Amino acid sequence: MSEARITSEAELIALLAPLTRGAPGALGLKDDCARLTPKSGCDLVLKTDPVRAGVHFFEDDPPTAIACKSLAVNVSDLVAKGAEPVAYLMALSFPEAPTHQWVAEFVRGLHEAQTEFGCHLIGGDTDRAGGPLSITVTVIGEVAAGRMVRRDTARAGDAVYVSGHLGDAALGLMLHREARDGRMALRNRWGLADSAAIELMKRYMRPTPRLSLSAIVRDHARASMDVSDGVVKDLERMCKASGVGADVDADRLPLSPVAAGVLQRETDLFARVVSAGDDYEILTAVAPDQCAAFEAASASAGTPVTLIGQFRAGDGVAVTRMDGTAVTFDRKGWDHF
Amino acid sequence: MSEARITSEAELIALLAPLTRGAPGALGLKDDCARLTPKSGCDLVLKTDPVRAGVHFFEDDPPTAIACKSLAVNVSDLVAKGAEPVAYLMALSFPEAPTHQWVAEFVRGLHEAQTEFGCHLIGGDTDRAGGPLSITVTVIGEVAAGRMVRRDTARAGDAVYVSGHLGDAALGLMLHREARDGRMALRNRWGLADSAAIELMKRYMRPTPRLSLSAIVRDHARASMDVSDGVVKDLERMCKASGVGADVDADRLPLSPVAAGVLQRETDLFARVVSAGDDYEILTAVAPDQCAAFEAASASAGTPVTLIGQFRAGDGVAVTRMDGTAVTFDRKGWDHF
Repeated sequence: MSEARITSEAELIALLAPLTRGAPGALGLKDDCARLTPKSGCDLVLKTDPVRAGVHFFEDDPPTAIACKSLAVNVSDLVAKGAEPVAYLMALSFPEAPTHQWVAEFVRGLHEAQTEFGCHLIGGDTDRAGGPLSITVTVIGEVAAGRMVRRDTARAGDAVYVSGHLGDAALGLMLHREARDGRMALRNRWGLADSAAIELMKRYMRPTPRLSLSAIVRDHARASMDVSDGVVKDLERMCKASGVGADVDADRLPLSPVAAGVLQRETDLFARVVSAGDDYEILTAVAPDQCAAFEAASASAGTPVTLIGQFRAGDGVAVTRMDGTAVTFDRKGWDHF
Repeated sequence: MSEARITSEAELIALLAPLTRGAPGALGLKDDCARLTPKSGCDLVLKTDPVRAGVHFFEDDPPTAIACKSLAVNVSDLVAKGAEPVAYLMALSFPEAPTHQWVAEFVRGLHEAQTEFGCHLIGGDTDRAGGPLSITVTVIGEVAAGRMVRRDTARAGDAVYVSGHLGDAALGLMLHREARDGRMALRNRWGLADSAAIELMKRYMRPTPRLSLSAIVRDHARASMDVSDGVVKDLERMCKASGVGADVDADRLPLSPVAAGVLQRETDLFARVVSAGDDYEILTAVAPDQCAAFEAASASAGTPVTLIGQFRAGDGVAVTRMDGTAVTFDRKGWDHF
C-alpha cells in the first residue's frame, strides 16, 4: 500500500489536510482559497521562496528533511524581520506522482516543522509537471504595526552582528555529496567523528530558523536580514540598501567547534565556507547603545550573536584578518542567476 | 541590448520593481519580505496557483499573455470568493536566463493585468532551475470580515449559475495548437473568420477574471467557486463539499455565438468542450429568493450569468438534454494528477 502512488489531487489533499488543524481559515483545504483573519494592530509580513531538487536539496533526501527545509528557509526570513509565523501556503510540483509513503513522511516533516515554528498550512496547490520536485512556500507572519525590521536602515557606526555559526551547512553539503557517492574522503581527511559529520549534514538538510531571535531583533536591531546566500554577499546587500559600507573582522566570523577544527586542517576552505549559502542565520545592524542589551537578550534566549564588524560611511564590504590582510573571495556568495 | 540576457537577480529585480509602485509595503522589492497592512474589518483571502510552460501555456506564447494568465488564474479564485485583489507575490523559475526584451514584455503584461485587477506586486523570488518556465503567484484579497463565500455551503433547492461562456478556451487551445504547427484544418472546418479564431485563442491565452461579479457573489450567492478544471468536474467538487447533488440542463450551458456555431458543425465536441479547463468563469449556488436579484445585478455589471440547473439532495452531477438523454463524459474535467 505505502509503495502505491498517489493517483489524484483529492488523495494528496486528504493526506495534507491534517496540517491545517488549528487553522479554521484553511477550511480543511476543501476550498479554492484560504481565509486569514489578521490580528488587530498587526502588519503582515510575507515571503515566498521556492526550493527545488538539485538546487536546494537532493531528490532522494529524506522527505522529512525536504519538508523541514521548504518551510525553514521562509520562516528564517520572517524571523529576520521581527515577525512571528502564523500560516503558509504551499505549491507542490512533482515530476511524477509520489508514493503514499513519501507523502506520509513529507507530511510528518511538515508537521514537526510547523509545530516548532508556530504556523499552519492554510492552502496551496499540487500538480505534476516536467522538471524537478519543486516546493514553493509562501509564509505569512505577524508583527506589531510599523515594527517590521527592514534591511535598508543600517547606519554608519552601527555594529554588525550575526547569529549562531557560519559555514556548517557548506561543510555539511560537501559531506552529503560524498556520502551520496559512497565516499568518505573528506570526512576522513577532516578527522570527523560520525556524530560531527552528521551534525554538519543536518545543518545543510534541516536548517533551524532562529525563532527565539524574532522578538529580540524587533526590540534591538536597526536593520536585519537572514543570511541565506553567504554572509559577505548578504551583508553587501544590506549595505547597498542602506547606503553604507561595512568592515568585517574575518577572525570574528563565528564558527562551530567542528567547523573551526575542519578549517584549521584546511585553511584554504575558509573563504569558500563563509561565503557559501544555506546558513539561515540572522544578520543585524545594531545601534551602539543597543549592543549590550541585544547581546544579553540573545544569550538568554539560547541563540548567541557575535559582533563581526561595523558599518561605516561609503560602500562595499571589506573583510580583514586581525593581522591586516584582506580576505578575498572567488565568489562572495550565491546568486540564483 | 534587448536581446541580451539577464545576468543577475539584481538586474531582474530592477525590471520588476516598477510593478510595486503604489504598494509601499513592497519596499521596492529591496527587502527579503513584503509588508501588508490589512484593512481594518477585513479578512484576507489567499490563493496560490502556479502556471507552467507546457501545462498552462506554451513557452513561446507572448510574454504579455503568459504574465496575464499567471495573475488571472489566481484573481479568478478571489472573485469567486467575493474578495477584492490587493497584492500578489510571484516566484519565477526560468529554465535559462531570459532576455531583457522578454522580461520587458512580461512586465508590461503584468502591469496591464494588475492595473485591471486592482492589485500590486509586493514580493517574490527569481531563480534558474531545471524544468519549464514556472510562475507561482500567491494572490491576496480582502473581503469584509466573515463574508468570504465558500464552496461547501450549497443547499438542495439552490439554483446553479455559471457566468459568461463555457468552452471558448478549449476551442481556442485546439486552434492555438494547430496554429503553432502552421496548420489551419480546424479553423477551416469550423468556418471561422480570423477575428473569431483570434477571439477563441485569446480566451485560452488571456483569461478574464470576472471582477465585476465579486461584490455580486458576496451579496447574493450562497456558495461559489471558479470554473478552471471543467464545469462538470468543478460542480461535482462543490456538490461533494456541500453534501448535495445537482442536475444540470445540458442545453442551458452557456456558449458564445462562435462556440455554438462550432458545436453545431461538430456535435461530437460538445462533451469535450464543456468539460475542458481554462474557462475561469464563476460557478455559484444561489438561494431561490436571491435568483432575480443575482441575475439583475450581474446583467447590470455587464457579466450575465446563466441558470444551468439545480442542487438537490443526494450526490453527483447529472447532465441531461432537454429530450431526456443523459450526456456522458469520457473525462469530466481536468485533474492535475
